[in-house]
Amino acid sequence: MTERVREILSWYESDNPGTRTNLARLLNHGRLGGQGKMVILPVDQGFEHGPARSFAPNPAGYDPDYHFQLAIEAGCNAYAAPLGFIEAGVTNFLGEIPLILKLNNHDVLHDEKDPLSAVTASVDDALRLGCAAVGFTIYPGSTQAQTMYAQAREITKEAKSKGLAMVLWSYPRGSDLSKEGETAVDVVTYAAQIAAQLGAHIIKVKLPSAHIELKEAQKVYQKHHIPIETLADRVRHVVQSAFNGKRIVIFSGGARSEDDAFFTEARAIRDGGGFGSIIGRNSFQRQQAEGLDFLRTVMGIYAGEIK
Amino acid sequence: MTERVREILSWYESDNPGTRTNLARLLNHGRLGGQGKMVILPVDQGFEHGPARSFAPNPAGYDPDYHFQLAIEAGCNAYAAPLGFIEAGVTNFLGEIPLILKLNNHDVLHDEKDPLSAVTASVDDALRLGCAAVGFTIYPGSTQAQTMYAQAREITKEAKSKGLAMVLWSYPRGSDLSKEGETAVDVVTYAAQIAAQLGAHIIKVKLPSAHIELKEAQKVYQKHHIPIETLADRVRHVVQSAFNGKRIVIFSGGARSEDDAFFTEARAIRDGGGFGSIIGRNSFQRQQAEGLDFLRTVMGIYAGEIK
Amino acid sequence: MTERVREILSWYESDNPGTRTNLARLLNHGRLGGQGKMVILPVDQGFEHGPARSFAPNPAGYDPDYHFQLAIEAGCNAYAAPLGFIEAGVTNFLGEIPLILKLNNHDVLHDEKDPLSAVTASVDDALRLGCAAVGFTIYPGSTQAQTMYAQAREITKEAKSKGLAMVLWSYPRGSDLSKEGETAVDVVTYAAQIAAQLGAHIIKVKLPSAHIELKEAQKVYQKHHIPIETLADRVRHVVQSAFNGKRIVIFSGGARSEDDAFFTEARAIRDGGGFGSIIGRNSFQRQQAEGLDFLRTVMGIYAGEIK
Amino acid sequence: MTERVREILSWYESDNPGTRTNLARLLNHGRLGGQGKMVILPVDQGFEHGPARSFAPNPAGYDPDYHFQLAIEAGCNAYAAPLGFIEAGVTNFLGEIPLILKLNNHDVLHDEKDPLSAVTASVDDALRLGCAAVGFTIYPGSTQAQTMYAQAREITKEAKSKGLAMVLWSYPRGSDLSKEGETAVDVVTYAAQIAAQLGAHIIKVKLPSAHIELKEAQKVYQKHHIPIETLADRVRHVVQSAFNGKRIVIFSGGARSEDDAFFTEARAIRDGGGFGSIIGRNSFQRQQAEGLDFLRTVMGIYAGEIK
Amino acid sequence: MTERVREILSWYESDNPGTRTNLARLLNHGRLGGQGKMVILPVDQGFEHGPARSFAPNPAGYDPDYHFQLAIEAGCNAYAAPLGFIEAGVTNFLGEIPLILKLNNHDVLHDEKDPLSAVTASVDDALRLGCAAVGFTIYPGSTQAQTMYAQAREITKEAKSKGLAMVLWSYPRGSDLSKEGETAVDVVTYAAQIAAQLGAHIIKVKLPSAHIELKEAQKVYQKHHIPIETLADRVRHVVQSAFNGKRIVIFSGGARSEDDAFFTEARAIRDGGGFGSIIGRNSFQRQQAEGLDFLRTVMGIYAGEIK
Repeated sequence: MTERVREILSWYESDNPGTRTNLARLLNHGRLGGQGKMVILPVDQGFEHGPARSFAPNPAGYDPDYHFQLAIEAGCNAYAAPLGFIEAGVTNFLGEIPLILKLNNHDVLHDEKDPLSAVTASVDDALRLGCAAVGFTIYPGSTQAQTMYAQAREITKEAKSKGLAMVLWSYPRGSDLSKEGETAVDVVTYAAQIAAQLGAHIIKVKLPSAHIELKEAQKVYQKHHIPIETLADRVRHVVQSAFNGKRIVIFSGGARSEDDAFFTEARAIRDGGGFGSIIGRNSFQRQQAEGLDFLRTVMGIYAGEIK
Repeated sequence: MTERVREILSWYESDNPGTRTNLARLLNHGRLGGQGKMVILPVDQGFEHGPARSFAPNPAGYDPDYHFQLAIEAGCNAYAAPLGFIEAGVTNFLGEIPLILKLNNHDVLHDEKDPLSAVTASVDDALRLGCAAVGFTIYPGSTQAQTMYAQAREITKEAKSKGLAMVLWSYPRGSDLSKEGETAVDVVTYAAQIAAQLGAHIIKVKLPSAHIELKEAQKVYQKHHIPIETLADRVRHVVQSAFNGKRIVIFSGGARSEDDAFFTEARAIRDGGGFGSIIGRNSFQRQQAEGLDFLRTVMGIYAGEIK
Repeated sequence: MTERVREILSWYESDNPGTRTNLARLLNHGRLGGQGKMVILPVDQGFEHGPARSFAPNPAGYDPDYHFQLAIEAGCNAYAAPLGFIEAGVTNFLGEIPLILKLNNHDVLHDEKDPLSAVTASVDDALRLGCAAVGFTIYPGSTQAQTMYAQAREITKEAKSKGLAMVLWSYPRGSDLSKEGETAVDVVTYAAQIAAQLGAHIIKVKLPSAHIELKEAQKVYQKHHIPIETLADRVRHVVQSAFNGKRIVIFSGGARSEDDAFFTEARAIRDGGGFGSIIGRNSFQRQQAEGLDFLRTVMGIYAGEIK
Repeated sequence: MTERVREILSWYESDNPGTRTNLARLLNHGRLGGQGKMVILPVDQGFEHGPARSFAPNPAGYDPDYHFQLAIEAGCNAYAAPLGFIEAGVTNFLGEIPLILKLNNHDVLHDEKDPLSAVTASVDDALRLGCAAVGFTIYPGSTQAQTMYAQAREITKEAKSKGLAMVLWSYPRGSDLSKEGETAVDVVTYAAQIAAQLGAHIIKVKLPSAHIELKEAQKVYQKHHIPIETLADRVRHVVQSAFNGKRIVIFSGGARSEDDAFFTEARAIRDGGGFGSIIGRNSFQRQQAEGLDFLRTVMGIYAGEIK
Repeated sequence: MTERVREILSWYESDNPGTRTNLARLLNHGRLGGQGKMVILPVDQGFEHGPARSFAPNPAGYDPDYHFQLAIEAGCNAYAAPLGFIEAGVTNFLGEIPLILKLNNHDVLHDEKDPLSAVTASVDDALRLGCAAVGFTIYPGSTQAQTMYAQAREITKEAKSKGLAMVLWSYPRGSDLSKEGETAVDVVTYAAQIAAQLGAHIIKVKLPSAHIELKEAQKVYQKHHIPIETLADRVRHVVQSAFNGKRIVIFSGGARSEDDAFFTEARAIRDGGGFGSIIGRNSFQRQQAEGLDFLRTVMGIYAGEIK
């Protein structure tokens, strides 16, 4: 085990050996194994946005096997997906890559202002399918946030007692937040803090903008001159907000974007001390070869081999 | 076991042998046994629409035994019904046809825009009544969809652990969808994807029209030139949306219609790679002999014996 | 055991011997024992309408013992009441008459348009009190119907597994129904069908009028010339709607009415193939001797001794 | 055991010996022991109205020990209080007086029109604290009444199975009732009936006025000339409404009032066949000596020693 | 054990030895150990207000270890925090200070008028992390107060049966209360009473103002001349309202304030018989040395060494 992984694991000493073993698996697998960095392939967009919007750009992605292969060949640390996708492919790739079972999901056939994801799988499903971790989404800011926090808490408790790692997607949304506010730096750091306090091992947030949403927070950012000009600054501030860097924070790639812009963001994540990325549409919505190239470039950036 | 059934079962390898045995039973029973095609008789209309609307056209159908007989004599793969109908007839037809116990139901004495079906039976009921599978309806798009997804998930988990197969009826409805949108091709494919991600073994959807409901989806269908002109195209797209054809998708027949129109639809389902039909009113609302003829013609189409 | 009781019990063969034993007890007890007809005394009006409205016409009825005595002396098949009334009297009449414990109740101190009864007793209460069956009210048409269906289902499942019979009161009410619609023939038959599909052994509905409430149903009644002119016609149609006569359907007497009118109704129930009546206010709101006479006349009609 | 207590216990024969033992304890303790009459000291006003409103008139009452002492010295049949008060004092007075643990409570920091009390203690708390009974408040007429009935039912079932007695406070309130209607004679009798049907052993209601609230009830009171002119008449009618006197009904004293008025009411309760009083503010809001005198006078009235 | 601690523990004799052992630990630890006084460090502001608002004034506080160290070095009786903070630091400070796990939390990304905190940890979490107590917040006055009381009750029951102490934060808020009313003396005393009646061992309230919010209470305060002029008077009245001083009541420090003002308040708490303070922002939002000085001064006041 590398020193860095040993250091990271030392932050989770209150967890049982089973959970820490699975955290070690996630950290030690793939191209970035042992470096304390992570690139995860998540494919829940079929549920969240619909199949055509997700897979038409690269129809191979309609097939559950495709994403296992992509994640394995690219050397991702893990592959994350809802129950159906994991069930449909897992027996073809037993033990080839750590799996994260996504335990709740949301669709846009009804797209409410204050969202609540439905619980669509369980910790025991993760165990029977051989997963290393479970994933769960919370929407801080939603009027239904309390329900999701309580669900997250129940699942986290069960996952930890059964030796799994817990990954929280923490995406602020809701009627009290402006659209711009969903990625405001004060809001994203707040989302990271909430996830950390809820007991997440790995926290997934969006990349923050320099906007500050909450009035009370604006005063504080001014008074204390918190540096938020560059993306790297803001990433550093998010990481600080996750227990001074003692929780693994990774950033979501979002919708398909220009490669250069994406790589620039990855550099900022790296330079700001972020732990990596969770990259869905930007990887599986390309032809496989191109997707592999893309993922390898991102990993090269995190590995410090590409400036 | 035929090669085709073996292939289909290979998609469900994460399930336990009990569940796969029941899937095999469903696939191997009746006139289409072994061909990887299915025609199922569902009779829940007494609950869903009321007894006279359902059974007055052929009053023999008031009797629970009638539908068992019809399904058996026609050579259907399975008979699906709510608790009362199954309980009332099962002992007269023990083991003669695989049964699917419908676990939730909805009536129209209160017909809300955002429907929620009531859970009216349990997995244990299915076991004590000798059923091969349980059925459950979700209404994606309803403001109450989360509740139904969570119920479906609980039932799916229990059914799978107890060796039963899971059939999901996935019918988009709700205040965010237009009437036309309920059968729009983007919405029906989305419904199939959600059911697949929830872990369904067999998915039942409505036949899709060429209408596209969601704005975000319209752009995608145009940009990627997804073929949706013919019904067979759209069936193919639905099947693709259910894990690239790795989940069994069957189509609902809907209200009583002209025979020729129905047979044309069956051909499109067959030609588009659909796995079959679930045919209620078009079969039991006729005199028995006529109903048997009708069902046999549909099966002949699926078997490829009738062009 | 008479041939008729044997026939009726044959419709319930999917139930365990304990439940069928209790059904046999209900069918074989009292004046109509063995004839496949039933008259049941229900006294939940103290809860449903208040004590003075229920018992002031015959103050003896304030006493819980009174109703046990009345039902026993009149030769009713069973006595049905809420927890308090059963608990207060049962030890004085152990084994003298089959008891039905009413498991939910509603009062009119708050009288909502879309009612939900409160669950006020349990299956285990029925067992410890020596009851043969449990009773439960559903209000199809209420916005809260789903909750009641689910409760009914849970209770039915538990009752059946513990060897009790299940009696469902199925009374359509709610904001989508007109007052007249609550007893419309299409609505009452629908209520009977729902109760049957939920797994009830004995179904209690109101006597239907010739009114047809639902638009979709009106077309069907016209097209298929369903006979609903006479009350006997309509009773026959209700019985048909309860699994072609394979479920026991009894009719509620309603508010205190003229004797002759009541006897005329009883004849129509008999002639239409109904299984009997559940008679509360018309029996216990009279002086005891008069109440006994009244009940005996009704039973005489069902027994065919009085034309 | 006196004949009267033996008679009262005979009404509860369906209960297990444990519960009947505790009922006997309540009936046999204190100054009125053995007479079939009860005076209970309830002190939940600190929760229900706030501490200063409750205890400032006699600051000794801030102390939990005070009320134990008062009830013991006055010779009350029992002392009733919420969890905190019982926990804080019980070890100083082990076995000196039967205790009733109040299981739900309401405060007026939010004072809603349709109240729901919060469940604040459990049957198991009552057992571990050595109580003889549990108490629970229902608000018939509240839109939330169904929830409270269901809670009451669960608690009653558990209490009875664990050998405790059940005391129901039945206080009509809610948006359908006028202020005057809360103590109307038809409403109070209805409240007593509901509590009895829910399985209460001891029922606590307010003293009824001659007002009649419900239209349907007014007709009945007129037609049947139910005597309600005097308070004793109305008490008699309440007792009749609680299973013809076969359930113990006691009356709440309400806010601090003139002594003579209170004693007049006690005489009416006695003369109308009521079983006694539950007296809080009128006893503990006085200096101790005065409070003891007051309680002893009331008991003297019930014992028939004071006319 | 000192006499004072022995006296305090005598108020909790109904609790099991495990719980009283943990109460003793809290009372005997740190600078004020054995004196019957308490200063607790609570750090849940990262969740409640966001990370920057909480930790930017002293960025060392982003790190979970910082607060353990601060509390230990200052000699606090205990350190209280949400799950994440405790999990992240506990293994570095095993047994060095009693811990209070905060079991529910609220954030301001959605800041509702009638708040409900989410349950974010469990009693079993507290046990596996070696905590001495659990903490829970209720908002009396909120329309959702009943839910929180019921949750508090469940948690209190479980904590007591598993040998932990229970600390209730009782903060009136909600649409029926004015802003000023949240700290009105009648409201704060009411909040203390509710917490005590719910079974709390330690009660945390805000310092009360001389304002009286509730009309009914105003009359009582005037009539009985309850002294509320000075802060010490009001503290005394709060302590009286918590079972005449037989429950431990501590006061929250609130937002960062001037040192002298804070020390004056501490003196009033001491002189009014309060048991101490829970001090968050005023201690951890300073540089460490300054924070230690501050806390030591407050403890000196409580110890009576500083006038």
